[in-house]
Amino acid sequence: MTSQTIAFSKYHGLGNDFILIDNCSSKEPYLSPQLAIKYCDRHFGIGADGVIFLLSDGAQDSYRMRIYNSDGSEPEMCGNGIRCLAKFMQDLEIPTIENQYFLQTGAGLMVVKLNADGQVTVDMGEPRLLAQEIPTTLADRDQKVINQPLEIDGQIWNVTTVSMGNPHCITFVADADRIPLAELGIKFEHHPVFPKRTNTEFIEVVSSSYIKMRVWERGAGATLACGTGACASVVAGVLNGKCDRVCTVNLPGGDLQIHWDTTTNHIFMTGTAERVFTGTISEQLSVS
Amino acid sequence: MTSQTIAFSKYHGLGNDFILIDNCSSKEPYLSPQLAIKYCDRHFGIGADGVIFLLSDGAQDSYRMRIYNSDGSEPEMCGNGIRCLAKFMQDLEIPTIENQYFLQTGAGLMVVKLNADGQVTVDMGEPRLLAQEIPTTLADRDQKVINQPLEIDGQIWNVTTVSMGNPHCITFVADADRIPLAELGIKFEHHPVFPKRTNTEFIEVVSSSYIKMRVWERGAGATLACGTGACASVVAGVLNGKCDRVCTVNLPGGDLQIHWDTTTNHIFMTGTAERVFTGTISEQLSVS
Repeated sequence: MTSQTIAFSKYHGLGNDFILIDNCSSKEPYLSPQLAIKYCDRHFGIGADGVIFLLSDGAQDSYRMRIYNSDGSEPEMCGNGIRCLAKFMQDLEIPTIENQYFLQTGAGLMVVKLNADGQVTVDMGEPRLLAQEIPTTLADRDQKVINQPLEIDGQIWNVTTVSMGNPHCITFVADADRIPLAELGIKFEHHPVFPKRTNTEFIEVVSSSYIKMRVWERGAGATLACGTGACASVVAGVLNGKCDRVCTVNLPGGDLQIHWDTTTNHIFMTGTAERVFTGTISEQLSVS
Repeated sequence: MTSQTIAFSKYHGLGNDFILIDNCSSKEPYLSPQLAIKYCDRHFGIGADGVIFLLSDGAQDSYRMRIYNSDGSEPEMCGNGIRCLAKFMQDLEIPTIENQYFLQTGAGLMVVKLNADGQVTVDMGEPRLLAQEIPTTLADRDQKVINQPLEIDGQIWNVTTVSMGNPHCITFVADADRIPLAELGIKFEHHPVFPKRTNTEFIEVVSSSYIKMRVWERGAGATLACGTGACASVVAGVLNGKCDRVCTVNLPGGDLQIHWDTTTNHIFMTGTAERVFTGTISEQLSVS
């Protein structure tokens, strides 16, 4: 065992906050999932929703994102997290290619663009709409679920389902703030028509280019922001004739601009990412 | 306006966590209450229960503690916070007087001792027991409330009240973990017999020298640790013949050792305080 000082930076995207670590000198994350859990603790640790590692495969311009959640699990990707990582790389003065970074993630190669106004755009890929892709049993395997009835405790909700790599169930409502989110969200999440459970979004359409979203994240509950949920909600809005393909989504943590591109069918998500502070923490690390 | 870099350290005492700032070069806190609120935010800021400033009155050995809570209010003192401040002063290599620091606070001069084992002892002063001192209307003004019945929703709880500068209502129970803390705590807090509301402790006596405490803090709800609550609970235990005057209190965030000294009538609270990390944050400050 030896005491080491670990340098980190803290960033957030719409209140979704991460500890960023420059891990380029090693091919494996510098921290164990157990240390990530400890550091994410908001009273005994640094406090964050996750730890993001910037790794390099050795070759120039070959960067990789790894992320541990606050429970030590490793998701494939995180839309708010990758914006923070792009800002971190910019702050580290890593050169861009035409203002873009190309990052390997568990969900494949992601392209992240730094905009002149300081915001960051992420290509979130194509939405998937077939029932088997969500997955849901609300329709036949190769059918879409658009404005279909779903019964919760005797009440009918008209829902649209979209996968952005994870399942989303979207409902349009008159007043998003009046939805009892925790009470309803848990019932949507665990409804038997969603064999892998579901994220749930309640959407209030303020105008065709501005919608308000309240989100219940699968396994996490009510959160300040959910990037894939914002993408899925605009897709659902377009499919139901309620939204433009370029639409601002207002979340409790701030706004995201979503663009569902006609040519590529890809969804581009634009939002802020901000460095809050930089720090160092001493740790007893086992030497390999 | 000018951009400044502010250095800080993050400490916690039993999970009660604080941003510590060396403010000795100025007689007023370096941050406004509004910035303290911003920095205490756990998603958009640094994240803490409060910001503690170490000020100096100019004269050598003349130090002052100021503290802003996460809501921007300024309490007189904080038992977990002052242990963190003592560790911070030690880390700054400020000389002690026989291992002690003498600190001016809003509650008067506090004496804090650094122990050889790394723990910190704070002289928390004398408990106050008269009904008018709590304050409570459960007894006549100059009477004590020891094991007196209090009705909550038709159920009788036998309570003891103690002031440590703030009001505490202590109930001994068979199993502290089975108490519906949030549901009951709010009803104790706002019971009409407590004109200034009350902190509420449910105590399970494991042995005469070890008790388990669950606390509902006035205005804050269920918390990991409450130093004055631990002191008040041992006083209540002694008054009810259930505790020794030297007793360990187990809280959700860890243990505190309490000693109600016979000679001085003062209560000495001993516990850990740990530095988690150090950091810097950039801020636009108005120049005075």
